[in-house]
Amino acid sequence: MIDFVIAIDAMGGDYGPVVTVPACLDVIKRHKNLRLVLVGDEYLIRSQMQIYHCAGNERLIVQHASQRVDMDEQPAKALRAKRDSSMRIAINMVKEGRANACVSAGNTGALMAIARFVLRTLPGVDRPAIVFPMPTYDENKFVHVLDLGANVDSTAENLYQFAIMGTVLSAGVDNVKSPKVGLLNIGAEDIKGNEQVKRTAQLLSESKHINYYGYVEGDDIFTGIVDVVVCDGFVGNVALKCMEGISKLIGFYTKRAFTKNFYGLLVSLIGAPILKKLKKQLDPGRSNGASLLGLQGTVIKSHGNADRKSYANAIEVAILQAEKNVSQRIGEEVAKILQGEKYSG
Amino acid sequence: MIDFVIAIDAMGGDYGPVVTVPACLDVIKRHKNLRLVLVGDEYLIRSQMQIYHCAGNERLIVQHASQRVDMDEQPAKALRAKRDSSMRIAINMVKEGRANACVSAGNTGALMAIARFVLRTLPGVDRPAIVFPMPTYDENKFVHVLDLGANVDSTAENLYQFAIMGTVLSAGVDNVKSPKVGLLNIGAEDIKGNEQVKRTAQLLSESKHINYYGYVEGDDIFTGIVDVVVCDGFVGNVALKCMEGISKLIGFYTKRAFTKNFYGLLVSLIGAPILKKLKKQLDPGRSNGASLLGLQGTVIKSHGNADRKSYANAIEVAILQAEKNVSQRIGEEVAKILQGEKYSG
Repeated sequence: MIDFVIAIDAMGGDYGPVVTVPACLDVIKRHKNLRLVLVGDEYLIRSQMQIYHCAGNERLIVQHASQRVDMDEQPAKALRAKRDSSMRIAINMVKEGRANACVSAGNTGALMAIARFVLRTLPGVDRPAIVFPMPTYDENKFVHVLDLGANVDSTAENLYQFAIMGTVLSAGVDNVKSPKVGLLNIGAEDIKGNEQVKRTAQLLSESKHINYYGYVEGDDIFTGIVDVVVCDGFVGNVALKCMEGISKLIGFYTKRAFTKNFYGLLVSLIGAPILKKLKKQLDPGRSNGASLLGLQGTVIKSHGNADRKSYANAIEVAILQAEKNVSQRIGEEVAKILQGEKYSG
Repeated sequence: MIDFVIAIDAMGGDYGPVVTVPACLDVIKRHKNLRLVLVGDEYLIRSQMQIYHCAGNERLIVQHASQRVDMDEQPAKALRAKRDSSMRIAINMVKEGRANACVSAGNTGALMAIARFVLRTLPGVDRPAIVFPMPTYDENKFVHVLDLGANVDSTAENLYQFAIMGTVLSAGVDNVKSPKVGLLNIGAEDIKGNEQVKRTAQLLSESKHINYYGYVEGDDIFTGIVDVVVCDGFVGNVALKCMEGISKLIGFYTKRAFTKNFYGLLVSLIGAPILKKLKKQLDPGRSNGASLLGLQGTVIKSHGNADRKSYANAIEVAILQAEKNVSQRIGEEVAKILQGEKYSG
């Protein structure tokens, strides 16, 4: 029995169907109650399905789309001129109730613009935000950081709305009771920060819907001292990319240390189970899949350069959110809080 | 023979003389032509010197200061009310030519305010910036990133000046010919970024003094694709702290993997030389010591929570800059370029 349908923008990302098709195959093997709709160039998708011997699979459906959004395309142009793109049709399926969620590794700006146009934001939410769970010292605890690049030049009011959305997400998905919200700043002292941050701090500390912790710095994210971290999309995106960049760099030096000479190779052979486990634990792909929060529907953004395993993980995030009915629950609660505040002045 | 004198704000940082005194002792052992002046509470400093049996060392001088700047003190207040603080006196020594440089692990905001007031900015420079060399895949190559937190809400003109300073630093210290300058943004495409970034990009691409590479993202910093990365202090500080936070987190998981059980311990024993070398290579303390660039004098900022080894490294940065006469060289070139541009309109 099919409980969930996820629409896949099969053309999105740096590799398109070469990655999305095998990733979909991996995922449906793990979930018997799932159907995936691969949206994109039918010929290219079916070619890949032939390679993986899954052309006849009843839970892998192909939905043809004649266009694709390029990775460097202007969002406004993609919105206007690519109405038959794989990205647009995948999002349309969510709008029309034909899919519980959609996943794309395509152009972030275009995805945001199209999702916002087609699905609309939740009542009371002015701008959607990109949110991603960051790792902490407790491997079972993640910190939801938003916004990670959907918006630049956010106002204090935007950041306040992100805090509300993050709070509801943390409570609803991670079952955190009264999630602590930190505001990203460059010093724990009140003396620092720019005007936007100072105004946001005031809004957050005055709200009865937010358990405001105070300012946090970049390194505090990973300590798990708060459950939600709020920041402007420019800052959040740089932080995310820096985190990825330095992780790769450390991985590079670690690998080199163990493969540089015979002794290193010997140790890496003996220590293989530990190194393998460690690599898995620190694998960025393990947690691929960011959510576009604040929309009337579930949209998951995968990294553009995701590989098969990593893309499969983004689909898993979409399934989890569909199962937990995250979008609707957040929608109801956020709307209640934000609209209530608007009406009460 | 004494070639260089460095003034040390012995009271600065989370630990004060407990860290600064032994670090100074380590450094003077390595440099026979160096004198260090420990500025601060004479009693506390001499007590530490007794512990380390260096009270009679002629190259470790104590200069009494009756005040100290607290780590959470308002910069304006520190500037006004702490004229006999260890931080102020150490900076005064640079101004008066009694020291070639000074080092402080104290309150960054106060250090910036006092240094700016006492030393003044270079002609043509409106605001100083904090710069720090970030690691890359080539262990001999570092990327100078600025600003890392001296300023928030920088204008495009400020960022342009940072680019000039970074260029001269990279050319003068690292001997890079025509250093490539990247502008930190949230996407490589022209479609992204906020207004300040767009205006800066225009200034940089039009300048004949800058080898402008274009936009770079957070993860590009560590690839070494450019020599200098320019950004607002808010974004730069978050990026730096995130880098430190995730490095510590990876270190934590790595250590745990090797100490969790008997097998892990065995492997870590066999692999000890490799792990030790790797730890050293990835040690953040190894590269402690950020420069306050754009002042008429050399001021090095150490991490507040630096330990002995790490603080010693910040002093080494000061020595290197004094030896290479960085401040004056940068001053001359920056002034030439920026003043030239101002006069030419």
